[in-house]
Amino acid sequence: MHTLFARHQQTLAAALKAAQERGYWSAYPEVPSGKIYGETAKDDGLSSYNARLGRPFDLPGHPATATVGTEVSPFGPPLGITYPAVDAITLVEASRTAAPAWAAASAETRVGICLEILARLNRISFEMANAVMHTTGQAFAMAFQAGGPHAQDRGLEALAYAFQEMTRTPAQAVWTKPQGIAEPIVLEKHWRIVPRGVSLVIGCQTFPTWNSYPGLFASLATGNTVIVKPHPGAILPLAITVSVIRQVLSQEGFAADVALLAADAPGAEITRDLVENDAVSIIDYTGSNSFGDWLRRHAGEAPLYTEEAGVNSIVVAATDDFAGMCANIAFSLCLYSGQMCTAPQNIYVPRNGIETNQGHKSFDDVAGGIVAAIDDLVADPARAAGVCGAIANPATLARIATARGLGTIIRDSAPINAGDARTATPLVLAVDADKTDAHEEERFGPIAFIVGVADADDGIAKAATLARRKGAITAALYDTNDNRTDAAVDAFAKAGVNLSINLTGGIFVNQSAAFSDFHVTGANPAGNASLTDTAFVANRFRIVMWRRPKAA
Amino acid sequence: MHTLFARHQQTLAAALKAAQERGYWSAYPEVPSGKIYGETAKDDGLSSYNARLGRPFDLPGHPATATVGTEVSPFGPPLGITYPAVDAITLVEASRTAAPAWAAASAETRVGICLEILARLNRISFEMANAVMHTTGQAFAMAFQAGGPHAQDRGLEALAYAFQEMTRTPAQAVWTKPQGIAEPIVLEKHWRIVPRGVSLVIGCQTFPTWNSYPGLFASLATGNTVIVKPHPGAILPLAITVSVIRQVLSQEGFAADVALLAADAPGAEITRDLVENDAVSIIDYTGSNSFGDWLRRHAGEAPLYTEEAGVNSIVVAATDDFAGMCANIAFSLCLYSGQMCTAPQNIYVPRNGIETNQGHKSFDDVAGGIVAAIDDLVADPARAAGVCGAIANPATLARIATARGLGTIIRDSAPINAGDARTATPLVLAVDADKTDAHEEERFGPIAFIVGVADADDGIAKAATLARRKGAITAALYDTNDNRTDAAVDAFAKAGVNLSINLTGGIFVNQSAAFSDFHVTGANPAGNASLTDTAFVANRFRIVMWRRPKAA
Repeated sequence: MHTLFARHQQTLAAALKAAQERGYWSAYPEVPSGKIYGETAKDDGLSSYNARLGRPFDLPGHPATATVGTEVSPFGPPLGITYPAVDAITLVEASRTAAPAWAAASAETRVGICLEILARLNRISFEMANAVMHTTGQAFAMAFQAGGPHAQDRGLEALAYAFQEMTRTPAQAVWTKPQGIAEPIVLEKHWRIVPRGVSLVIGCQTFPTWNSYPGLFASLATGNTVIVKPHPGAILPLAITVSVIRQVLSQEGFAADVALLAADAPGAEITRDLVENDAVSIIDYTGSNSFGDWLRRHAGEAPLYTEEAGVNSIVVAATDDFAGMCANIAFSLCLYSGQMCTAPQNIYVPRNGIETNQGHKSFDDVAGGIVAAIDDLVADPARAAGVCGAIANPATLARIATARGLGTIIRDSAPINAGDARTATPLVLAVDADKTDAHEEERFGPIAFIVGVADADDGIAKAATLARRKGAITAALYDTNDNRTDAAVDAFAKAGVNLSINLTGGIFVNQSAAFSDFHVTGANPAGNASLTDTAFVANRFRIVMWRRPKAA
Repeated sequence: MHTLFARHQQTLAAALKAAQERGYWSAYPEVPSGKIYGETAKDDGLSSYNARLGRPFDLPGHPATATVGTEVSPFGPPLGITYPAVDAITLVEASRTAAPAWAAASAETRVGICLEILARLNRISFEMANAVMHTTGQAFAMAFQAGGPHAQDRGLEALAYAFQEMTRTPAQAVWTKPQGIAEPIVLEKHWRIVPRGVSLVIGCQTFPTWNSYPGLFASLATGNTVIVKPHPGAILPLAITVSVIRQVLSQEGFAADVALLAADAPGAEITRDLVENDAVSIIDYTGSNSFGDWLRRHAGEAPLYTEEAGVNSIVVAATDDFAGMCANIAFSLCLYSGQMCTAPQNIYVPRNGIETNQGHKSFDDVAGGIVAAIDDLVADPARAAGVCGAIANPATLARIATARGLGTIIRDSAPINAGDARTATPLVLAVDADKTDAHEEERFGPIAFIVGVADADDGIAKAATLARRKGAITAALYDTNDNRTDAAVDAFAKAGVNLSINLTGGIFVNQSAAFSDFHVTGANPAGNASLTDTAFVANRFRIVMWRRPKAA
């Protein structure tokens, strides 16, 4: 058994069990505590991050003919880091050159190496937190969790599924076919895992590691080489990741180029060149539907796994905890300023209001309750900054400005008093479903619509239909009526949306937990794949046989 | 538990075990024996077949606005059967109307129904044999096996994989996340299987059931409705299949239109209309690479599973059983007149000959040995007819005529003295790899090339390279050198071809056994999927969740 596989096999076994049972489990602690990560870990991580600023990123042996890098922290300062850059053809050729030995390694060897990579990534979670924070705009605590342990958990989950699929078919078998009274025909058969080839992982700016790790580790584990194409605005987290992968590969005697970084410059992206290269045989993508459509037309024979955009909805039908509901919704809208793919945008409320534990609440009461909860959450600038973080992309501020004209402003967006950071609290608009469809487009960022509908059934129908048409990754319902809840469960299932019901307290519709929640269903336009299930890993490799008569 | 599931669950359990172990197993006896199928089964099957001739095919309740049907037996007579026909939009709408109840049924219910369908198809294997024989041109024994029990085994294999995937994730779980000294967060989570929608199965003329059953049963079992689009020349086997499916569905209280027949006329195929319909959400296809390319461009978001064309090769490097080798190759070339997707076309032989148990054999000796074995096999017309069957498509005869000019004819093709049947024994051409590439195109039918190469290594390299470029489903090697065999195993694995080594006696490179051989690797242009593995079934449905705080 490979040393690294032996070292980490208990983690793998626990991950396989967790993925099977789908209760709560995590391999990598989400609490940024010195007791867990070491008393100096926080300071060390910051130091390591600071040491990377203002200089070329060191990727020994990585192909390069130029440098790129224009990252600017949403919290203010430019990072000043440059990365090795090279054209798509050179990247693909380097990847193919590194491929044969990696493809020939055993599943245990590759999975052992991937487990070691994850363990090392876990150890530098504080450094990664700073890197994610200053490229995405996530507040530190979220950047630590989502960029570090949660992303690592998702990578491990993909690894566990990949290992299970690779070991499902025996390496060999004897096939003995009876021939009546004659001697049977006896063949020995041997199967091996053959990877597809070069795997391209196209990252996004907001969750550079969390969204990329599943595809990255699933492809690596199944023997493919990987080219990681970060968003030009969030290169550093994936550069650090690729750096760790290359270190472990080299130490284990494999070519570092099994993992390559395809850094590029805004406006001069090399993504299309990579996709159109025939050697690129798997594509993982997080991003817009429009580029997703382009990928579908140009991916050729490469399996394509996407997470695209959608419009997430909440239907407010009734509640027995009005305050808890408003607080929960407010937090979901504020968290990372609505820049999560799981963040709600539309809140459907009956025009005649709803029944609650505080008695009847009119449409305006409900809207007002949510707005008041937002105001409460962001009243203290330090707390607001800790929840909302910063705005990753200046275009989001422009989108907020445009959105102001789309309905009745019941809460305006405003900057948080947070130094140089680019910030914005939620803009909340009231609209009526019969009078506009402005809310039916995705308005990425801290923009929410309280949408008046005829009644709860109407809200459920409209939210589910919108999910089916435009895609949705999450939906939420607040209701106290069991029959209506059952109907909503059916409606959202048919629309391919995961539904959260009556969340209050410390759990939010935005949250998707590895080993339990399948992130994205793959059943509506918000994405064609799920993180992480069998379908996500099983087609990244093929099984090839040889057979011959078995010697007597 | 559903009654039908209970009735057949031992078959399912045995299939799951067989697919896991991949030794020899079969659920449906391949021997067309009265002892197994009933002493009158053969006559009854022929009577049932004859009763269908010359009249409209009865599919009660099937949508129809016209009739089509121009099938002519390759053995002579027109079938004279007409089938209900209707446009693509009507078919898709009928399919969607039937969908909700089928999607809502439990996995056990659907799988139980599919198992019952297979059991009933098995009982009418003699009727199916006649239907397959007189549409494909397969000789009776092969039509019985490949069209009946072997196809049913492949359907069962797909069903077993589908059941395993649908039951891998629990229907519910409790997620309990510790919160330090505070109360944990406890959610109940519920998952359900959501089918993709309408599944289109595009059949081929030569193996209408064998190639269609895996996709058909995988899609049905996972809750999709199915539209079966037969080749206009081989409608009857799939019409009978759809008829049985509709009978069982109706008896079990589901809409018969869960399975529909998309019969059409040559030159007026409705395939493209079906593919371009947005509701068509899964496509299974067996056919040409050119239409495969069209499908890749037009399938949109529908997962596409293909078996396309390729060029299969044998490399003759050395043998310790020259006579056995020649006889085995000869049978592989003659069987169903080379119209199997697994039939070899190119036989690479070193120009300087090979070493054998009969001493050195020159290139001409090897070619002559194979030709003599073919001549021996087809010398008796009755035996020849039993092995070669008939030619499915007149275009194949034209192809033979054209091919005569592509090399030195060392054995000419000729009709078999077999009444009105359209027949042709193998055309064998000698060519030199340095002087032509005529053999590098697929020449579907009884056309073989003995290809002179520098040596065995050269033959292995050329065969593997061709497989990678043009696709191949099978490869074979005859060799006595272990090192060279190991290298060949590597080369063909990298080319994504299943390799058979030193086959002699009653087992042939053409044969692919359910539950053991993965048919097509999906790793070269001969197809993007395999019958049947996890990847073939796992993306035919999606998993959707709802979750809520668990009541204390």
